[in-house]
Amino acid sequence: MTFALHGIPVSKGIAIGKAVLISRAALEVSHYLVEPGKEEAEAKKLLDAFDQVRLELDQLRQGLPKDAPQEMAAFLDVHGMILVDPALAEKPLKLIRTQRLNAAWALTTELNDLLEQFAEIEDPYLKERANDIRQVAERVIKAINSQKDTLETEFLPSSDVGVESIIVAHDIAPHDMLRFKDHTFTGFVTDLGGKTSHTAIVARSMEIPAVVGVRHASEMIRHGDWLILDGEQGVIVVAPDEQLLAEYRKLQSQAAKDARKLQQLKHAKTETLDRVDIELFANIELPEDAVQAVKLGAVGVGLFRSEFLFMDRKQALPDEEQQYQEYRRVVDLMHGLPVNIRTIDVGADKALGMGGADVSQTGTSPLGLRAIRWSLTEPEIFLTQLRAILRASAHGQARIMIPMLAHAKEIDETFRLIEKAKQQLLQRGQSFNPNIQVGAMIEIPAAALVLPLFIDRFDFLSIGTNDLIQYTLAIDRADHAVAHLYDPLHPAILNLIANIIDQAKRAGVPVAVCGEMAGDPSLTKLLLAMGLTDFSMHFSQLLLVKREILQANAGILKARFPRVLKAYEPEAQAKALERLFS
Amino acid sequence: MTFALHGIPVSKGIAIGKAVLISRAALEVSHYLVEPGKEEAEAKKLLDAFDQVRLELDQLRQGLPKDAPQEMAAFLDVHGMILVDPALAEKPLKLIRTQRLNAAWALTTELNDLLEQFAEIEDPYLKERANDIRQVAERVIKAINSQKDTLETEFLPSSDVGVESIIVAHDIAPHDMLRFKDHTFTGFVTDLGGKTSHTAIVARSMEIPAVVGVRHASEMIRHGDWLILDGEQGVIVVAPDEQLLAEYRKLQSQAAKDARKLQQLKHAKTETLDRVDIELFANIELPEDAVQAVKLGAVGVGLFRSEFLFMDRKQALPDEEQQYQEYRRVVDLMHGLPVNIRTIDVGADKALGMGGADVSQTGTSPLGLRAIRWSLTEPEIFLTQLRAILRASAHGQARIMIPMLAHAKEIDETFRLIEKAKQQLLQRGQSFNPNIQVGAMIEIPAAALVLPLFIDRFDFLSIGTNDLIQYTLAIDRADHAVAHLYDPLHPAILNLIANIIDQAKRAGVPVAVCGEMAGDPSLTKLLLAMGLTDFSMHFSQLLLVKREILQANAGILKARFPRVLKAYEPEAQAKALERLFS
Repeated sequence: MTFALHGIPVSKGIAIGKAVLISRAALEVSHYLVEPGKEEAEAKKLLDAFDQVRLELDQLRQGLPKDAPQEMAAFLDVHGMILVDPALAEKPLKLIRTQRLNAAWALTTELNDLLEQFAEIEDPYLKERANDIRQVAERVIKAINSQKDTLETEFLPSSDVGVESIIVAHDIAPHDMLRFKDHTFTGFVTDLGGKTSHTAIVARSMEIPAVVGVRHASEMIRHGDWLILDGEQGVIVVAPDEQLLAEYRKLQSQAAKDARKLQQLKHAKTETLDRVDIELFANIELPEDAVQAVKLGAVGVGLFRSEFLFMDRKQALPDEEQQYQEYRRVVDLMHGLPVNIRTIDVGADKALGMGGADVSQTGTSPLGLRAIRWSLTEPEIFLTQLRAILRASAHGQARIMIPMLAHAKEIDETFRLIEKAKQQLLQRGQSFNPNIQVGAMIEIPAAALVLPLFIDRFDFLSIGTNDLIQYTLAIDRADHAVAHLYDPLHPAILNLIANIIDQAKRAGVPVAVCGEMAGDPSLTKLLLAMGLTDFSMHFSQLLLVKREILQANAGILKARFPRVLKAYEPEAQAKALERLFS
Repeated sequence: MTFALHGIPVSKGIAIGKAVLISRAALEVSHYLVEPGKEEAEAKKLLDAFDQVRLELDQLRQGLPKDAPQEMAAFLDVHGMILVDPALAEKPLKLIRTQRLNAAWALTTELNDLLEQFAEIEDPYLKERANDIRQVAERVIKAINSQKDTLETEFLPSSDVGVESIIVAHDIAPHDMLRFKDHTFTGFVTDLGGKTSHTAIVARSMEIPAVVGVRHASEMIRHGDWLILDGEQGVIVVAPDEQLLAEYRKLQSQAAKDARKLQQLKHAKTETLDRVDIELFANIELPEDAVQAVKLGAVGVGLFRSEFLFMDRKQALPDEEQQYQEYRRVVDLMHGLPVNIRTIDVGADKALGMGGADVSQTGTSPLGLRAIRWSLTEPEIFLTQLRAILRASAHGQARIMIPMLAHAKEIDETFRLIEKAKQQLLQRGQSFNPNIQVGAMIEIPAAALVLPLFIDRFDFLSIGTNDLIQYTLAIDRADHAVAHLYDPLHPAILNLIANIIDQAKRAGVPVAVCGEMAGDPSLTKLLLAMGLTDFSMHFSQLLLVKREILQANAGILKARFPRVLKAYEPEAQAKALERLFS
């Protein structure tokens, strides 16, 4: 019987093939009280298991095949970081010693506590990291049980030559992924996961269609079922009939053709029909993303979200050296192209680590102590980050980008601290680029309304449309009840953004858009009409946006744009936009 | 020994006098299990106690002296509403019947649950209402115990002729207040309470200085202590020395002189030195506030917060008839002057009653489903409110004012529902003003940026500066961590507001400011400089603002204003403002 399952589309494309069900040995957690006097032996059991898993991961890391996706190493590092953090073992050890819980029970208790804390977090990226902790903890529990943490590989296909395979699993850990390198798969389906889960990131980098978060997929799909995986719509059709198969095959081959065509654009010059040069930058989250960015022709990193470094940490923030190494890695991977490193853009709760007691209590609201506001209240943490970025600037075009500025006094204070960080490095005799560029995100309405203040003091500007829209419309996108009111085409938004671009251009200050609008090919012409020449987007969108640019005439768009700006009524706007896009 | 206590200043002025400590019989709650079979007798005990307190309150209400502050009746009504609400007794009755708790214990359990739920609420006004529930429940518990709920009046002063008295109490309930009418007091100090507690409201209406929320005041101050109460700073000086007393006496007599002078302004025409007519409107929360508003010379109610009707309700919303009566009361009290009734401006959780399970879970964020957004998702509730306002418009100048509009489609939908409400009344044959004026709050940045959309469709506009500032700066004022960044003088704010006023004036659409900026006498000249002629503020600020207006030259202010608008840097702005105010 044909039926469809729905999930989160995380990697584009259509896959058609037979399901290969990957099941894992079930996790067995026994519960018993250790005999009095045997607590230390039990504690050792836990610590030994940690050591064993650490060793296994190290070996995996060492033995990474050359052709493994570059992100893989980063993921294994993240798991390694979780393992070496003493915090994960601390409470379970206490539970063993004071309440005589057996090791597996004690660790499970802590794991459940942590997962509950993570459930409170709104940020989807950080939320996803709960999964890493779970994967690591489960591996440790299996080590305690002397269970082998392997996939039941007997299911892996061998004979069905010519038939493509789609992996279906409850969840896939980074170390599982490595095993798939020896086989050919054309799609991934998992019960768990979200847009920023490791599965999703790896699938995108391997350009394999994937749908995650398809609840119960691994229970409802049987091994060998025919599947259609639609990585655009997030749909899995199980046991499709011939007609549907034929339709999707057609779509698939069309998509493959489109994709090939798109790939051919990689090396084309990015300019409009009327020869206006456009620069495409990438937004990245992991240093490794830089590889893809360069491959796809990005002329720099428009936004490196430094939060990557602050995630998965329980207690201590990364020190200057750790941050410097990561920033330098991005700078090196970009081979001299500019890299805008945005300073921390989360609230106190998130940045200060996940293990603390605060996390479930003080969710930072979008109107709260976030980003530069928080950084300025924690000058030591901010100075540490600034020094790390400055040191990376000795090796390439690292640039500082400050999020959520709105007040003149915040700008003053920011520059004072940048100056101080430079002085500290000078005293230490460490090298940096003394003329490092400093940019500001324009993402608070007030900032957009006093733009001369920013134009006068910053080397470049970057419009964060996501937050700018959110505040201008007084809409929290993460709030389902009002998400439908979030509208990039609201005439207030178009006027505001057009005005920022216009003012910056007139003043000769480089201005980019780095919010989601920049990566939406349906809005590319609109932004060109505003006079935008610098676009920064998730690297997966680069070629799609480039294609739009190659087909656009900037001069005509600009000439038609004033009518769009003045169209406040929906019907008038629809007409003006239709004319613009025609 | 001299020492100072700090609290929340809620009613201005300086009082100097001896402390009169009002202590209440302590609440005694016994805890025991009722014998099996006696549950119904215990349940009856609880219901009888409710009846008794209801009767007492009714009698108090009937016997209200003529000179009692008008708000008093409203407060007793609120307590009455809480009492007749079956929800308050429901759970305690269940606890008695199923768990055999004694009546007082059962009610205390429910009370503590409710207080916990209220603790989650952010809105200070609604939060304060927890106190009403506590006061009512405690009175019922005392009735169960056959304790008399009276003040220990033996402490009330009698002989100290010529010495003024300041009441110091843990808390003062509305029914307590009535007893003070026979005595002369010059100040109130309470341990509990906030800006919108009943004590605060009554103190303001009686023009008696008061400081509330002075934790432990009733424990640290002894009966007969000399006190200085500073209702401006929120400070209580206990046992001040002669020098301090002399200083404050001087301040007090100066303040009394100022207040007398201010009172003389009541009947003066409100115009600037250069004869620009200015209209002062009042913001009110309770229908009774209208009395003060008229007394102080307001030419209308610029903002009636209809939430008053939706507070203190556990489950059912007030029906059309109840709402109509309240709106009509305001309209009648205003004797034909306009009354802008703002439709519900809270989120689903607050409007839907306090007794529900939701209250602690879904605090509506400032960026969430609030105000008109919520009303449009609940058309029946919205239509009920619209019909009630329309019916009130048959008796005077009731006008509809819509909060938090930002999208053209919201405006369309709002007018569609207003039309529908009119049709419903026509079908019923009920009268209303078919030309009722409809206004919009401009409080979302997007609305300010597409003002022509609002100018075309509304009869009047009112700028809600509190929210407008909050969203434009991306600052939640209620969040202590960022409250210091809330700044009405941010150049983005000044430009935005000036622009709204300018556009509305040019189009000939009346525009008022009804946020706190309008009631701040230090900003009056600034608003006059923007060309504002309609101010709406808490009635207590009317004369202070009027005094500023009488001393201002609008023409000169306007001429000097452009320099302020262009001053983005703090120093430049400070200079421009200094020149403006000089």
